[in-house]
Amino acid sequence: MKKPRLIVFDVNETLLDLSAMKSAINTAAGEPGAFENWFRTLLQFAMAESLSGPYRDFGEIGKHTLEMTFQNLGKDLHREEADQLLGHISALPPHPEVPAALKKLKESGYRMVTLTNGGLRTHKQQMQHARLEEYFDVFYSVEAVKKFKPHPETYNYVLQSEGYKPSETMLVAAHAWDILGAQRAGCKTGFLKREGKVLYPGGIYPDMVTETLDALVYQLTT
Amino acid sequence: MKKPRLIVFDVNETLLDLSAMKSAINTAAGEPGAFENWFRTLLQFAMAESLSGPYRDFGEIGKHTLEMTFQNLGKDLHREEADQLLGHISALPPHPEVPAALKKLKESGYRMVTLTNGGLRTHKQQMQHARLEEYFDVFYSVEAVKKFKPHPETYNYVLQSEGYKPSETMLVAAHAWDILGAQRAGCKTGFLKREGKVLYPGGIYPDMVTETLDALVYQLTT
Repeated sequence: MKKPRLIVFDVNETLLDLSAMKSAINTAAGEPGAFENWFRTLLQFAMAESLSGPYRDFGEIGKHTLEMTFQNLGKDLHREEADQLLGHISALPPHPEVPAALKKLKESGYRMVTLTNGGLRTHKQQMQHARLEEYFDVFYSVEAVKKFKPHPETYNYVLQSEGYKPSETMLVAAHAWDILGAQRAGCKTGFLKREGKVLYPGGIYPDMVTETLDALVYQLTT
Repeated sequence: MKKPRLIVFDVNETLLDLSAMKSAINTAAGEPGAFENWFRTLLQFAMAESLSGPYRDFGEIGKHTLEMTFQNLGKDLHREEADQLLGHISALPPHPEVPAALKKLKESGYRMVTLTNGGLRTHKQQMQHARLEEYFDVFYSVEAVKKFKPHPETYNYVLQSEGYKPSETMLVAAHAWDILGAQRAGCKTGFLKREGKVLYPGGIYPDMVTETLDALVYQLTT
């Protein structure tokens, strides 16, 4: 593979570790699968919103779907508790190998940006809290195009803003649907097989598949 | 509410009972949440496919996502077993109250059609097996427009084919994202609050919400 010049990173689960948020939601719901159900429902409704009509902020869809998850379990969810649980999203730690891997990638001369389904303000808080700000040239949120990933406009927005061709660009993500969208926009892809994540057999096999970011960075820098 | 003239029914879970398929998949996977995970992943990838690019048959996405579900559990899924598990979809029973409720609705003069994300051939097998054929004027599948619900083209396809205005039409479904899409296409909506189904707080409250079809039909016929 000819190496890319621009690396676009997905954020939640890809760079940031949602374990603490997962425990908090599962404990509050009294159900070990609550976080997983919520996160899938959140993604489902983000896609449903972008398929069917106007844009709505990811945080708002997050709140609506958390309410659904609790309702489904027959549990009350008070506004303060919802805000407290969802507040975790701004204060997530990076996965342990991420800072050193990003540093190495940056030092080897790649242009590095993010692209998240989350709102830009929350995303900037995330990067600041996780102390990852210095490694990125630009932070991008889909709110600029008012469509969620994997809509092609979201990837095209980054490609056009950055002035790189799809073939010069690699999306790195832990979500198979994000990989599928980037492939369809013509980008190279790197799949991080984080715990519980599997590839979609309907997509092309990604250019790189590793379990952690440092293994992927090793391939990009040697 | 002014009563609608055309009733459009979603099929899987709304009219047909997936319990037997659920048990079969959970037993084969050795995991009580396997069916639920699969069905959510199936809907997620159907939406991701329609957001990001070309159309793929629902049955094919069903097979790919069942493979993902098993892989995630560290279980092998042989082709024959996948075919056998997915074959349940053509031979589902109706929910117990459905035949009598549809009969009553038909007798009161409503025009009744279906609209499913499934392929038309499979859908016709489903209706024949469940002995529900006689109650419907037309069976519609989204494969005609090559987009999955809740894309507006899917609802518009039925409205244009039938020649009814959105305000004369009610979609009946057990899925909140389907209700959201129909609302955005301007239709009236009836939500069947089947077991485990909850409304999306981001949508408008539906015109009718009942736990079973006969309760909804009662409101439409009195």
